[in-house]
Amino acid sequence: MSEIKDKAIQAKAITYSLASMSTEQKNQALEAMALELEQDTDQILAANAQDLLHGRENGLTDSLLDRLTLTSERIQDMALGLRQIVELDDPIGEVMEKFDRPNGLKIEKQRVPLGVIGIIYEARPNVTVDAAGLCLKTGNASLLRGSSTAIHSNKAIVQTLQKALEGIGYVKEAVQLIEDTSREAASELFTLNDYVDVLIPRGGASLIKTVVASSTIPVLETGVGNCHIFIDESAKAEMATNIVVNAKTQRPSVCNACETVLIHRNWAKQHLPNLLDQLHQHHVSIVGDEELREWDASSEIAEHKDWAEEYLDLKLAIRLVNSTEDALAHIRKYGTHHSEAIISESDEHVVAFLNGVDAAAVYHNASTRFTDGFEFGFGAEIGISTQKLHARGPMGLEALTSTKYKIYGEGQIKS
Amino acid sequence: MSEIKDKAIQAKAITYSLASMSTEQKNQALEAMALELEQDTDQILAANAQDLLHGRENGLTDSLLDRLTLTSERIQDMALGLRQIVELDDPIGEVMEKFDRPNGLKIEKQRVPLGVIGIIYEARPNVTVDAAGLCLKTGNASLLRGSSTAIHSNKAIVQTLQKALEGIGYVKEAVQLIEDTSREAASELFTLNDYVDVLIPRGGASLIKTVVASSTIPVLETGVGNCHIFIDESAKAEMATNIVVNAKTQRPSVCNACETVLIHRNWAKQHLPNLLDQLHQHHVSIVGDEELREWDASSEIAEHKDWAEEYLDLKLAIRLVNSTEDALAHIRKYGTHHSEAIISESDEHVVAFLNGVDAAAVYHNASTRFTDGFEFGFGAEIGISTQKLHARGPMGLEALTSTKYKIYGEGQIKS
Repeated sequence: MSEIKDKAIQAKAITYSLASMSTEQKNQALEAMALELEQDTDQILAANAQDLLHGRENGLTDSLLDRLTLTSERIQDMALGLRQIVELDDPIGEVMEKFDRPNGLKIEKQRVPLGVIGIIYEARPNVTVDAAGLCLKTGNASLLRGSSTAIHSNKAIVQTLQKALEGIGYVKEAVQLIEDTSREAASELFTLNDYVDVLIPRGGASLIKTVVASSTIPVLETGVGNCHIFIDESAKAEMATNIVVNAKTQRPSVCNACETVLIHRNWAKQHLPNLLDQLHQHHVSIVGDEELREWDASSEIAEHKDWAEEYLDLKLAIRLVNSTEDALAHIRKYGTHHSEAIISESDEHVVAFLNGVDAAAVYHNASTRFTDGFEFGFGAEIGISTQKLHARGPMGLEALTSTKYKIYGEGQIKS
Repeated sequence: MSEIKDKAIQAKAITYSLASMSTEQKNQALEAMALELEQDTDQILAANAQDLLHGRENGLTDSLLDRLTLTSERIQDMALGLRQIVELDDPIGEVMEKFDRPNGLKIEKQRVPLGVIGIIYEARPNVTVDAAGLCLKTGNASLLRGSSTAIHSNKAIVQTLQKALEGIGYVKEAVQLIEDTSREAASELFTLNDYVDVLIPRGGASLIKTVVASSTIPVLETGVGNCHIFIDESAKAEMATNIVVNAKTQRPSVCNACETVLIHRNWAKQHLPNLLDQLHQHHVSIVGDEELREWDASSEIAEHKDWAEEYLDLKLAIRLVNSTEDALAHIRKYGTHHSEAIISESDEHVVAFLNGVDAAAVYHNASTRFTDGFEFGFGAEIGISTQKLHARGPMGLEALTSTKYKIYGEGQIKS
């Protein structure tokens, strides 16, 4: 049997015992994992050094190498992350609804774990700890499938986590790493519907697309964000400028960063030069229509793909529009249903925009950068869902749960 | 462009206007649809006669022909079904959560339509009306893909529904029928992720399996039920017998009917002969292990597939077990996560069973036949979900909705 099927079967087999773990047991396991990470820092750093060596040999970019790099501080942060999960309320077991039927049946809707969660992710080894911790707190078994570039780090980390679990008598198969990082193994994972309940891809657009297209297991789709900000004619100049600069430059590499700004022509007449100045000062390169060159001779002409792309870089598309409806039409064509914002002082336009945009998060007079589990106060985040089923927007612990109806009778039969 | 892509694009294009329809407008549309169905009864019956003629020529079974047959009474029932949907609360627009963040952002989580829902279903033409009505009430556009055997009936029905919508100035593309019932058209539908938000298969196991395996669009999986009843040693004899007979015979063709009974040996010693008598009186044929033949010489030997199959017929598998754990092990091996019941007077065993079974609905001392939107008091049902994401168990109107975060600021930027 393949490694992956074997581990999936083992994971499924323990879901029943994981589902009955008490909050105290789960918190104890998280605490043990945090402690063991701290104690094994040297081994983990040694394994990480191997990955970095391979990475340099294989010509990984500096930014990828940076994401791959662990330090004792970053390992300390992983341990801290686990301890923060300890502090979160345990959603499992919560009775969400309770109702009696005329025939005397008593019905309860209770929150239960999903079962086995497959997480498919890219270079960052901290995702290993983060995903394992969130799944554990929600009584789920995690099957972690990181990238080949981080395999030594991930192996060392999961070994440490499993040692911690064994040390306190917890089921160590609650957290498993898939060590075979081949494409074939991934393809096999995509069809293990009998053992894996949900797949969550965490990474770039192409990873997510592959999982969505290939998996017969339900997928929690996360993260591609081609986010827009629409500056309405009534927008306050300074507020709009600050928000655009923030949403573009504060951290350009993340999914809730802004990629396109749509500007009402009446606002542009007065305030566009200053906005462009500010963006140039922040080293943002601009693309746009022919018309934009009248305002900014240095801007490049945007092709279709430029309006559709998630740059994740200091690059911004700008288009002038005549109305809220024009802005909506543009977003409906190019948006990815992640985060969209309107800067406006007109109630009518705000309502039309917030209702008319089909996205997980829609903003009035704020930066799109707030779409994030921590900013929403969830205390944790497994990703940002851009699909419409199950969970939409930042996903906290509840997104990792399902429900079960318990029905209590006294011999009721259907007549 | 293919019919199906064309209709999907049209459906997507109107989702924004459908999302803003008021409850009154939607109810008016439902009422108009009901009235028009009544007025067009003759045309619909004439179209149905064509389908029945083709069906007989093509050798459809009597039970399939019965499901396909419309009468003026059945059309009246469809109209009544729409009027019942009028009476239901409109979930769209509901603010589910509302919270303020320390930085002053005000966040609201609001219920919104899913968008475009593809429904793929088999012979029963009443599903056409039912699905169209439920989607309309929740502000969704429906793309209906019925079977070729019902194509004339479905065409006539959708024509009538669209005439009703046009008559009151509603968007008629809110309800569309896919007239191309070829496999190729279905395959195309499965990958229209840009236009279709969710697919819901309603029909037999093989239809559902095909959709789950082939669709890259998120699927709401419904319905296969290999439901078990476990009779614990402490079960009251009459209650257990009545429940099993009811769950098996009251309507054997539905997904919440019982297919396998697991019986504690101590209970069997005293009460199995009477249970077998009752089942035989109801013309139920029995399959089981070699051991069962000592009790019922007429029973057939069950093979692996007999434990796994959803009979949907007057056939029942029976196995004797030694404990609740044995029963759980059997259900974990063969169950389809639909509905499972324990008949018992032991609190300990009841708790172990209800927590230990992984199913949408778990029963204590009641028939599995109650897993149903109407029995749960939802007033409507689009199907029974056996998956764990989004909705599990009977799905009412809320299962046809998604959510959207609306965030109100005063210029907040991320620091």
